[in-house]
Amino acid sequence: MARSDETLAAFLERTRVRVDEALERALPRPPACPAIVSEAMRYSVFAGGKRFRPILALAAADAVATGADAAALPAACAIELIHTYSLIHDDLPAMDNDTLRRGRPTLHVVYGDGIAILAGDGLQAEGFALLAREPADAAFADRKLRVMRIIAEAAGAIGMVGGQAIDLQAAGQAPGHPLDLDADALRGMHARKTGALIRASAVSGAIMAGANDAAVDAVDRYAADLGLAFQIVDDILDVEGDAGALGKTAGKDAAASKPTYPSLFGLERSRTLAADCIARAHAALDEGGLADGRLGAIADWIMSRRN
Amino acid sequence: MARSDETLAAFLERTRVRVDEALERALPRPPACPAIVSEAMRYSVFAGGKRFRPILALAAADAVATGADAAALPAACAIELIHTYSLIHDDLPAMDNDTLRRGRPTLHVVYGDGIAILAGDGLQAEGFALLAREPADAAFADRKLRVMRIIAEAAGAIGMVGGQAIDLQAAGQAPGHPLDLDADALRGMHARKTGALIRASAVSGAIMAGANDAAVDAVDRYAADLGLAFQIVDDILDVEGDAGALGKTAGKDAAASKPTYPSLFGLERSRTLAADCIARAHAALDEGGLADGRLGAIADWIMSRRN
Repeated sequence: MARSDETLAAFLERTRVRVDEALERALPRPPACPAIVSEAMRYSVFAGGKRFRPILALAAADAVATGADAAALPAACAIELIHTYSLIHDDLPAMDNDTLRRGRPTLHVVYGDGIAILAGDGLQAEGFALLAREPADAAFADRKLRVMRIIAEAAGAIGMVGGQAIDLQAAGQAPGHPLDLDADALRGMHARKTGALIRASAVSGAIMAGANDAAVDAVDRYAADLGLAFQIVDDILDVEGDAGALGKTAGKDAAASKPTYPSLFGLERSRTLAADCIARAHAALDEGGLADGRLGAIADWIMSRRN
Repeated sequence: MARSDETLAAFLERTRVRVDEALERALPRPPACPAIVSEAMRYSVFAGGKRFRPILALAAADAVATGADAAALPAACAIELIHTYSLIHDDLPAMDNDTLRRGRPTLHVVYGDGIAILAGDGLQAEGFALLAREPADAAFADRKLRVMRIIAEAAGAIGMVGGQAIDLQAAGQAPGHPLDLDADALRGMHARKTGALIRASAVSGAIMAGANDAAVDAVDRYAADLGLAFQIVDDILDVEGDAGALGKTAGKDAAASKPTYPSLFGLERSRTLAADCIARAHAALDEGGLADGRLGAIADWIMSRRN
């Protein structure tokens, strides 16, 4: 629940703790599941992530109906599990081949590719299991099914998986269609790869809190621009950042000859484009009458982040 | 719907066509998703599979309430999508490293490991998306959520993913715990790796058709024994079969030093154990008053299959 006297930093920290506790409860442990799967899943889920997507879901729920965010907590955590699976698979040698994430060796470096693939597969399944289980109250059945469809479609071929496939093609790692992305295609790739699940996070939070269609639409437009800004800032940090602050290898995009906002537009214009997104996100909140909650501050936080 | 004058072979063929049509409708295609993802998913989904799990789901639905199987078709297809994703990932070099399945090169051989991982990831998501969407009638909401939880948990760490992790450890491909499986542990591995999703198939069909708790329980006990018989027969065929009939490499288990029913019990005793399972499956149907439908004939079919 939003507390008017709470700073954004305090809200983020409190929500992060709350999400971490819910994630711990949601994941199976031995003897229900083999120890190695439990260990591998937890290695990646509790790796110090920002919990941006769950925070967004809970803030959207609270913006729609103050105090209604408890109903959004399972969806928020389900999305984080799905996001974590995507990071594990993206890091594999067959994909981006990253050995460092959030300052630690990536999962496949520690457990091998086979267990890393399985841990990712398992996290996706656990996300949907959590969505199906909670909230247990039958009154939420219709909202849960609506949210489940949104999240599954955002995670699937028309969303995140499709975006990662385009990314692989752009990096020359997939057969058939060596892609040379222009600005529109780059935006389209990001809209799938990261945008779809970020939109699903905010929209799911709003729906679980009982938002009407107009509020859902406003939250969706807010999150679409927020997601693009998030990605542009990511691209900028990959150029400007250092591995210590990022917790991952900087300069990976350029080394992989991947198209990015800075490579297409330069750093200065990329910053302007991100700021334009944030301005549009604020406008969507204003139009939806949702400017009083945390969503506006979260947009500004995304713009100013350093990792 | 069961037709009393229809042979099992005709039922299987008719149901296979029906499932294939529903799978085709369920999968996204360009421009909604990138062409390469659509192509890769379809390469594996339409590879000539037996559709054992969807057939089981539909037969269970029809056994519970004649003609109610249409409500079970989305769940039946969702499970087939999830099963297909598991085959794609199991075939990867980091897992079983199989280059041939159903007589064709495996997906990663054709599209590369990256796209194969993504196509599998996408199929899991599409399975849950289909479950969330259909049947669209709100009257099915509670059944859908119940089935979704069962399927997601069967696919996850306590089920299929957990079983495959144990299999990797037994084959010495995972760190930390080199496993030497005895008969109980082998049965436990199969119960997770293939048994959980087979049980989920039958139980989901029954629930979608409106089964009461006693009928769901009978179907579950039937399917648990059916699933184990299915796996024992698989092990036997791996020893006895030839690649032409199997459509995959025979003798893989022995080459990988994997424990199997024949390696632990010998062929003759393995056949007896499978027959015992089938007898128990029939007994469960009798006790549940479900002996009149197709489920009994499906059990006998599993016992006699040659591929």
